[in-house]
Amino acid sequence: MEVVVMEKISKNVLSQVITPRDPESYKGNYGKVLIIAGSTQFGGAAVMCSSAAIHSGAGLVTVATTPEKFTAINVKIPEAMTIDYHDKKALLTGIINNQVIAIGPGLGTSTIAKGLVKAVLNNTKTDQTVILDASALTIIADEKIPLQTTANIILTPHQGEWQRLSNLAITEQIELNNKTNLHELNPDALLVLKKHQSEIYYHDQVSKITVGNPGMATGGMGDTLTGIIAGFVAQFGFSLKTVQASLFLHSEIGDKLNEKNYVILPSSIIEKIPKYMAKFSSKEK
Amino acid sequence: MEVVVMEKISKNVLSQVITPRDPESYKGNYGKVLIIAGSTQFGGAAVMCSSAAIHSGAGLVTVATTPEKFTAINVKIPEAMTIDYHDKKALLTGIINNQVIAIGPGLGTSTIAKGLVKAVLNNTKTDQTVILDASALTIIADEKIPLQTTANIILTPHQGEWQRLSNLAITEQIELNNKTNLHELNPDALLVLKKHQSEIYYHDQVSKITVGNPGMATGGMGDTLTGIIAGFVAQFGFSLKTVQASLFLHSEIGDKLNEKNYVILPSSIIEKIPKYMAKFSSKEK
Amino acid sequence: MEVVVMEKISKNVLSQVITPRDPESYKGNYGKVLIIAGSTQFGGAAVMCSSAAIHSGAGLVTVATTPEKFTAINVKIPEAMTIDYHDKKALLTGIINNQVIAIGPGLGTSTIAKGLVKAVLNNTKTDQTVILDASALTIIADEKIPLQTTANIILTPHQGEWQRLSNLAITEQIELNNKTNLHELNPDALLVLKKHQSEIYYHDQVSKITVGNPGMATGGMGDTLTGIIAGFVAQFGFSLKTVQASLFLHSEIGDKLNEKNYVILPSSIIEKIPKYMAKFSSKEK
Amino acid sequence: MEVVVMEKISKNVLSQVITPRDPESYKGNYGKVLIIAGSTQFGGAAVMCSSAAIHSGAGLVTVATTPEKFTAINVKIPEAMTIDYHDKKALLTGIINNQVIAIGPGLGTSTIAKGLVKAVLNNTKTDQTVILDASALTIIADEKIPLQTTANIILTPHQGEWQRLSNLAITEQIELNNKTNLHELNPDALLVLKKHQSEIYYHDQVSKITVGNPGMATGGMGDTLTGIIAGFVAQFGFSLKTVQASLFLHSEIGDKLNEKNYVILPSSIIEKIPKYMAKFSSKEK
Repeated sequence: MEVVVMEKISKNVLSQVITPRDPESYKGNYGKVLIIAGSTQFGGAAVMCSSAAIHSGAGLVTVATTPEKFTAINVKIPEAMTIDYHDKKALLTGIINNQVIAIGPGLGTSTIAKGLVKAVLNNTKTDQTVILDASALTIIADEKIPLQTTANIILTPHQGEWQRLSNLAITEQIELNNKTNLHELNPDALLVLKKHQSEIYYHDQVSKITVGNPGMATGGMGDTLTGIIAGFVAQFGFSLKTVQASLFLHSEIGDKLNEKNYVILPSSIIEKIPKYMAKFSSKEK
Repeated sequence: MEVVVMEKISKNVLSQVITPRDPESYKGNYGKVLIIAGSTQFGGAAVMCSSAAIHSGAGLVTVATTPEKFTAINVKIPEAMTIDYHDKKALLTGIINNQVIAIGPGLGTSTIAKGLVKAVLNNTKTDQTVILDASALTIIADEKIPLQTTANIILTPHQGEWQRLSNLAITEQIELNNKTNLHELNPDALLVLKKHQSEIYYHDQVSKITVGNPGMATGGMGDTLTGIIAGFVAQFGFSLKTVQASLFLHSEIGDKLNEKNYVILPSSIIEKIPKYMAKFSSKEK
Repeated sequence: MEVVVMEKISKNVLSQVITPRDPESYKGNYGKVLIIAGSTQFGGAAVMCSSAAIHSGAGLVTVATTPEKFTAINVKIPEAMTIDYHDKKALLTGIINNQVIAIGPGLGTSTIAKGLVKAVLNNTKTDQTVILDASALTIIADEKIPLQTTANIILTPHQGEWQRLSNLAITEQIELNNKTNLHELNPDALLVLKKHQSEIYYHDQVSKITVGNPGMATGGMGDTLTGIIAGFVAQFGFSLKTVQASLFLHSEIGDKLNEKNYVILPSSIIEKIPKYMAKFSSKEK
Repeated sequence: MEVVVMEKISKNVLSQVITPRDPESYKGNYGKVLIIAGSTQFGGAAVMCSSAAIHSGAGLVTVATTPEKFTAINVKIPEAMTIDYHDKKALLTGIINNQVIAIGPGLGTSTIAKGLVKAVLNNTKTDQTVILDASALTIIADEKIPLQTTANIILTPHQGEWQRLSNLAITEQIELNNKTNLHELNPDALLVLKKHQSEIYYHDQVSKITVGNPGMATGGMGDTLTGIIAGFVAQFGFSLKTVQASLFLHSEIGDKLNEKNYVILPSSIIEKIPKYMAKFSSKEK
């Protein structure tokens, strides 16, 4: 019988991933991210996810959302650009021209949302990374959409979403089952299973995080993690370590804030990202 | 003649209520709150109330309001979700699916507002808590709406609103009268009577707060308290102590701020909630 | 020939005016303020003026403005209520029910703005205070509107606005002329003439301020002062000293900020008001 | 063969330019700036550019943009006034009445944007300064619009925009070529060529900056620089030194923030401007 070894993600991964920037670099070197998120009822998710991506160091971030959310984005994160996700041509251009596409936070499961998920899977390719989160995962499960893009794929379900996606009841979500069912979905996909001590599955490697705290159990925390992953992949490239570093940083900041705060708002994590990236980055190139 | 004993709420109530979180918990453990608040003229009330609920640790907060306020909510508290309270189906789903429903801040007394109050009272049941505040109390008084839900009921009137609700002139609002008239409205309802040294009535127990200061005499302070109560009930459960702790924390933060501020804005109380919850929580489980 | 004695306003005025609050007071004791301000092009003026009034301690503040500015107000100062100044009935109710009415910041000189100025002058009476600022002063000068209300009147022109109002060229704006021409407009009006070392004229008393600095020479500073005056009159009552204290506090905060800032934004003054009111208030009642 | 001497801009330029303000000055002394910026997709650029101009000390700043962005501007920088750039009469008045006109950030290259660029070049004259940035530079290159205004001209391209404008490939962008091609466009224009160690060309003088860091490689950084230049020219007058000081301050703040932040958001630079201007200003006049 196959044995799955669970690696514990260590803080070292931060300095391995967060390397000093080349002095002669410019914003084009730090990647272009498209975040497809938000809907009338869930506007804040688009705000938090894009803000997290920008605070994490992505060079350029565009949010594809419903235009009624543009003002909130312009106020909370003026560094982000916006496109109307009802505009098929602009959306397609956005999907093709960005290295990282994150889809799902606050998207809902409307017909439009379903079309957006399909558009991403159908129009991305090898040198891109697609992060599927939240509503996008529900849509994929409900519509049985195959994960057929040649882009790198990152799935970020919580346990309930993973159940819908993998058909594994929460009690069945043990390492071997998770790994097997992930590979059935797509053998090259990377899975971030969000839970107490979140786990990452990628090819044969399984790792988990042991930082984090229950003060982080607030709405929007997942949208924020997705934004950090997007920002990190955009600038450091897709790899298991990049995703591990994103997950670790998110929880590490949460733990620091938890020392003095009973609950931790996603917004408060986001504003600390640039400082903690500096703190944990390797000092020399 | 009946004697009413007035208990003074002590700071101990905070550590009794604000217990450490279970490390293996997730946001679903901290309750779902629906805040029905705001109208064209009083948009800020919805912002403050929902922001207070989230800063107080509610797991998930949805604001049912008029859609013209969605942008303000997405900006000020992106962690909140929104629903249009004109959408009867979405509203009813929200009422049924949330454990705590707070209604009233900035709602006004329009026909729509009246319908919202009735919808809450008609569609909530045993395992839920309904907090009736501000305009909701005026509507109940004006329309003589019976408090017939089987949900837990918390009423949060200031003295003028209590006069309308109880038919007690302010000079008549002594303990025995308040208790008697509250029991006539609903013998199981909990009353927070907001005044200098606010009082709480629940069954046979009467308690009052002796912290707080006149720098807190600013518009929006009541909306903020309602949000804190909602957040506390959502995560710590409905009980007299939970409401006492909410009221105490609100005034305690106000007192701390008053040391260096002549007036205290509700917004400044809200942002301090996570820190003061940490400070006063019991250290061990 | 008449001699005008110019008093220098001293810092003592702050502790004389900013007295400790009665512990048993509530928000109704700190006055209701209506701010009629803002237009499509000048929305920020309404935001800054109302925010200043609330940070200065007014009990309740309502902003009458164009509805397209409601979202900005809900975000920046959720404590404020709003009314649409195109709604004549709501506006008239607002004028009648507030103790202090400040009109002018960012109002523009449209036909609607003219009607608003007239509505204020025609519908206020003895126990109220009307603060006429910015566009309202231009309208009064252009339309030769008599200052006929029996309410207390405060005029807050800069030198150019005072020229239009008094027909005094800036070089002619010496004490005796200012006093004479003010009394012609209305012998009981109080004039705050904004300039380097601003002057206050009221009956026979003339005083000037010697604090303040050129870092405060930024757009919106006047709107902020108007808000402070409104908040102070609402809570401390109309008097020469109240206005002197408002003016002094505004410049004193500006001087403190100027120690470390080359320019001072109105927004940065506003957020400091509660702290400086505490610092300068008399400690005992 | 002509030799181009490259001067290194020293920190001294800050104290030479940022001189103490005359105590008797008022906001009119610090210049009026019109920023023509923003479009549906790029609203944040207008917010950041105008906010930078105001934090840099411009007396009065008006933003000409699409009205859907007014709320974001009213919230993020209430000190700014707004005009709808579709309103030709208001726009023309704005162009004529402001001393500094900055055009381009987030403007896009629509027909309307093209008309705006032409309107600026056709209606400005000797005593004004026109800053052409971002989309405005692309439009000028694409439409081959001659730089014929008699106003002072500042061009702020990054290398890709300069390539389009000068027809110099990035590898050809050496000092002599840059100078020659700039003089062909307009012999009196000042060029800020944004790159690692940005360069300034003006008449026969070529200077470069050696501060700055790759943490500043984030979207919106250029919009922010444009706002600083606009604010500096408005208050200190057009000169090579004024532009050098703007560029130096921007990078100097970036370097300070980089000590503790891996990435630097434009918004975080903007809020520090007043403090750093105070720190580097000459202490006496």
